[in-house]
Amino acid sequence: MRRFIIDTDTASDDAVALVMALTYPDVTIEAITVVCGNMPLEQGVQNALYTVELCGKQVPVYPGAVAPLLRPLEAAHDYHGQDGLGDIGLPLSGRVPAERHAVDVLRETIRRYPSEITLVALGPLTNLALALTLEPELASLVRECIVMGGSVSGGNVTPVAEYNAWVDPEAAKIVFASGMPIKLVDWQLSSRYGMLTPEEEGQLQAQGTSLATFCVDIQRVAREVSQKNLQRGIVLADPLTMAIALEPETATETGRFFVDVATDSLTRGQTIVDIGNVLQREPNVEVVLTASHERFVQLLHRAVR
Amino acid sequence: MRRFIIDTDTASDDAVALVMALTYPDVTIEAITVVCGNMPLEQGVQNALYTVELCGKQVPVYPGAVAPLLRPLEAAHDYHGQDGLGDIGLPLSGRVPAERHAVDVLRETIRRYPSEITLVALGPLTNLALALTLEPELASLVRECIVMGGSVSGGNVTPVAEYNAWVDPEAAKIVFASGMPIKLVDWQLSSRYGMLTPEEEGQLQAQGTSLATFCVDIQRVAREVSQKNLQRGIVLADPLTMAIALEPETATETGRFFVDVATDSLTRGQTIVDIGNVLQREPNVEVVLTASHERFVQLLHRAVR
Amino acid sequence: MRRFIIDTDTASDDAVALVMALTYPDVTIEAITVVCGNMPLEQGVQNALYTVELCGKQVPVYPGAVAPLLRPLEAAHDYHGQDGLGDIGLPLSGRVPAERHAVDVLRETIRRYPSEITLVALGPLTNLALALTLEPELASLVRECIVMGGSVSGGNVTPVAEYNAWVDPEAAKIVFASGMPIKLVDWQLSSRYGMLTPEEEGQLQAQGTSLATFCVDIQRVAREVSQKNLQRGIVLADPLTMAIALEPETATETGRFFVDVATDSLTRGQTIVDIGNVLQREPNVEVVLTASHERFVQLLHRAVR
Amino acid sequence: MRRFIIDTDTASDDAVALVMALTYPDVTIEAITVVCGNMPLEQGVQNALYTVELCGKQVPVYPGAVAPLLRPLEAAHDYHGQDGLGDIGLPLSGRVPAERHAVDVLRETIRRYPSEITLVALGPLTNLALALTLEPELASLVRECIVMGGSVSGGNVTPVAEYNAWVDPEAAKIVFASGMPIKLVDWQLSSRYGMLTPEEEGQLQAQGTSLATFCVDIQRVAREVSQKNLQRGIVLADPLTMAIALEPETATETGRFFVDVATDSLTRGQTIVDIGNVLQREPNVEVVLTASHERFVQLLHRAVR
Ligand SMILES: [Ca+2]
Ligand SMILES: [Ca+2]
Ligand SMILES: [Ca+2]
Ligand SMILES: [Ca+2]
Repeated sequence: MRRFIIDTDTASDDAVALVMALTYPDVTIEAITVVCGNMPLEQGVQNALYTVELCGKQVPVYPGAVAPLLRPLEAAHDYHGQDGLGDIGLPLSGRVPAERHAVDVLRETIRRYPSEITLVALGPLTNLALALTLEPELASLVRECIVMGGSVSGGNVTPVAEYNAWVDPEAAKIVFASGMPIKLVDWQLSSRYGMLTPEEEGQLQAQGTSLATFCVDIQRVAREVSQKNLQRGIVLADPLTMAIALEPETATETGRFFVDVATDSLTRGQTIVDIGNVLQREPNVEVVLTASHERFVQLLHRAVR
Repeated sequence: MRRFIIDTDTASDDAVALVMALTYPDVTIEAITVVCGNMPLEQGVQNALYTVELCGKQVPVYPGAVAPLLRPLEAAHDYHGQDGLGDIGLPLSGRVPAERHAVDVLRETIRRYPSEITLVALGPLTNLALALTLEPELASLVRECIVMGGSVSGGNVTPVAEYNAWVDPEAAKIVFASGMPIKLVDWQLSSRYGMLTPEEEGQLQAQGTSLATFCVDIQRVAREVSQKNLQRGIVLADPLTMAIALEPETATETGRFFVDVATDSLTRGQTIVDIGNVLQREPNVEVVLTASHERFVQLLHRAVR
Repeated sequence: MRRFIIDTDTASDDAVALVMALTYPDVTIEAITVVCGNMPLEQGVQNALYTVELCGKQVPVYPGAVAPLLRPLEAAHDYHGQDGLGDIGLPLSGRVPAERHAVDVLRETIRRYPSEITLVALGPLTNLALALTLEPELASLVRECIVMGGSVSGGNVTPVAEYNAWVDPEAAKIVFASGMPIKLVDWQLSSRYGMLTPEEEGQLQAQGTSLATFCVDIQRVAREVSQKNLQRGIVLADPLTMAIALEPETATETGRFFVDVATDSLTRGQTIVDIGNVLQREPNVEVVLTASHERFVQLLHRAVR
Repeated sequence: MRRFIIDTDTASDDAVALVMALTYPDVTIEAITVVCGNMPLEQGVQNALYTVELCGKQVPVYPGAVAPLLRPLEAAHDYHGQDGLGDIGLPLSGRVPAERHAVDVLRETIRRYPSEITLVALGPLTNLALALTLEPELASLVRECIVMGGSVSGGNVTPVAEYNAWVDPEAAKIVFASGMPIKLVDWQLSSRYGMLTPEEEGQLQAQGTSLATFCVDIQRVAREVSQKNLQRGIVLADPLTMAIALEPETATETGRFFVDVATDSLTRGQTIVDIGNVLQREPNVEVVLTASHERFVQLLHRAVR
């Protein structure tokens, strides 16, 4: 049995990733820790609680950082809707999260299960950066940390930066430099292997279950934005990341590179991935280079069955 | 009875400040939380433990952040000696600190005594920044935070930056922006009102107690450096800060200004004190503008008696 | 006989400085070179042409840089009025400047009279920076460059930056690093010794000449702003600078320090004056530390007589 | 007949590009303007003069900027040899350049032939930035400016920056923002279409002319470095750029994008090419996306015949 902690700024693709993990057989989710990002903290917490309830599970949800380390939060309502789950009228309020601080739960759970915890980070890395700053030795106690974030080349918020790394670039910098074993699922990879076309969405919905309906319906705003931008489908970055966390073979090729994060104005949040080893620095991140789209879609289907 | 938490990167002037607080009648020191700064964390912890023991007290000492938020630590062995207490051969190792993390102790103690805790910050603000980032509402639960750091004009590490603000400028930025009621004892003020001349050092030592001897002897390296730099005496910034914390009337004039901290290369760690209100921003810090040197010296004498 | 080039972003205090120089006996003004700053280039050129004409002189006026090196121009209409000369209805258009580029005139004139030219820089340092970048050896051919700009401590646009250094900080950085013999008249000095009280303005106007009327009337907007800000008078920074250029004894005390300029966000344009020699760098600027207000006022009176 | 100005930091690949232009039939090279870059200015001037002489031409060579706008020069002796032409013993000293400043020649020549000048920029953009800063209207008088520099993705000096843009990023920023019609030949394109394999070098040398020998021999150091780095051949970025300048059809595909340049620490010199139009800014650069390697090689062969 594997132990996961999922750190998430729960919006529409995080929710699908949560469904995948919550329904997966041999994985115990020790905690869902929420961080501000796509959604303000409070909304992300409610969305995570709703998703857990919908899956009929008891996993505790802990609220974490309410703001990036050094910058004001810039949420992504435009892409995920006001409530983060597509504004389709779900009852996303009133649930009560667990009492402890997400960062404390991260610290304690990692210490309780040394070398056992798989961290899946689906939002800005603020919670993880805080835990690692408080206790740098946690880096060596984590089994693996699979991060959705950054971009080997190109971005989605600026020409060079992906959202999670851009919202809290200092946190990303801290996490990448921490020495923790990190596997990176970047924006470029997600766009290529984690995109769901309208046909594929249709096939998913055709499963007819409440989870299938949920997973498809909450993409409403994201789908509209993607169509307006003439994209072939919606990018499910967090679900692809979860697929790789659940079944590592979903990543078909990886490489170890030195990765750092720019924090200055024009290039804020850009992940510098030294593929050509120009800097001749010790590699610190295993970057997923190719993935299996088929496997990803299979995992999606199995999750909502 | 007043409740203090003292956050300190315990070097030679911190130790004197600790002596002043530990021997002061109506103050309960709930905790001494140590942060890296003048000394690496481990050495600062040992120095604090030794000082508490020398004073015959039972105050717990908690280790905190081992590095600034985003930068490598640059300690100040040149000014305080290798062991931080003047390299006069004190047995500064082997003592065992309390078990909890300084940042957790800060969080819990402030919550336990809402509006009661006086925080005295004598080192870089990393511990405080971490506590405030984890729980922003702590800012409104602190009674007052007296900070030694920054400079209204001029600096001691660079032409514009004081050491504590320079070592972890991001932490200082977070703390100043937190909304916590802050009273700032800056470098300029410390140089003017917190300087002890050789005569004054002699008078202190003439008290003949072990604490008097300790307080004077541990300034050995600092004294040599100050003489080499042709200064009239040694600047006891932390003790002046403690004097103002213990007896607020030691500050004879203050002003409320907007204060921010530069984090960029050339001006890293500079505190921008908007005395002329050029930015027309809400004041966030009460800056001590003048202090009573006499009162400060009296407090010193009383402490070592 | 001395040879001057005056580089100016001609607004209300520049104009007074021009009057002082144009009416001074033993000085030949080889050229007035205009730079964008307080005014867009075109308006500054017109204001300089008008001032020369009013003084009945033939000095050529050359237009220079239309924008700072790397940043958009932020003019100062609020302080100097829309036309830069107090919006008192002067006919400030239609005059035709000389044909050459200010930067070329600077280069050639300095080369024509090696070690003879006194440069008086009353605006942002863009023109000078361009000349020095094109021909670094000009730095050693200038007799002296008296610069109005920067601030030893405190600022007027931000808490730490003076306008001229702030508008084009990169240019200031280039000029200070050029090796040219620079005498700096900073904002702090100008505020202290170059301020004209209402009484002193009255005495100047009482001279009854057209130049006296001009020099006082064009301060209309500046006077209003200063009164609103509860200042004791108007600061005539450029005229004080010109007084020091014309009669060096107006500066009663100077010091040589290393000076650099911050170009980053929060401290953009701050002049770092290493008075304490913290950086232990070679001094590159002679900073005027005190000046004679009486002498300055005398020079003003003589100019408009 | 077309009029060219070639701006170059003449090292081993610039020299080949010069040979191509100097031997091309219908092009008049009005001037070769030299800028510091791969070589210190003086050496670049000598290398250009030698190359012109070897081609038996009379084109004047003008020295320009001796340093980047704001930074010290970091030359590339490691890649091009101490003398920039492979250290093969060529007599590269003693020739006398034309007397005027490169930047002045750029300004005057562009004005003399409005809409006629094709600028080919083969080095850091310092000279061009200075000309455009002095006279912004030059941007609209240039027929076209073909720039070798920057990188759509990946770099050669840092993981994200190409040398020319990195050496003087502020200059590149100024030039890209100037409004001048720019066609960009970036590092990525050059690596793909401008690489010469050992076989292709052999075929070129087999022409047996002195120019063929020169063009191949001066790549000695570059060849060694490339082999050590396990590259398939040497990248002739400047010659590919010149091929596109001489015969625009060598570029087989281009796109117009918004391009800016990062100037901050970690990403200094990175060209931000907004291919996805994330910033929704007006395109300012035509970026060459594919080129004809065959055509490029043909042009090379014709040049040395
Ligand atoms: Ca997410
Ligand atoms: Ca201290
Ligand atoms: Ca001026
Ligand atoms: Ca070149």
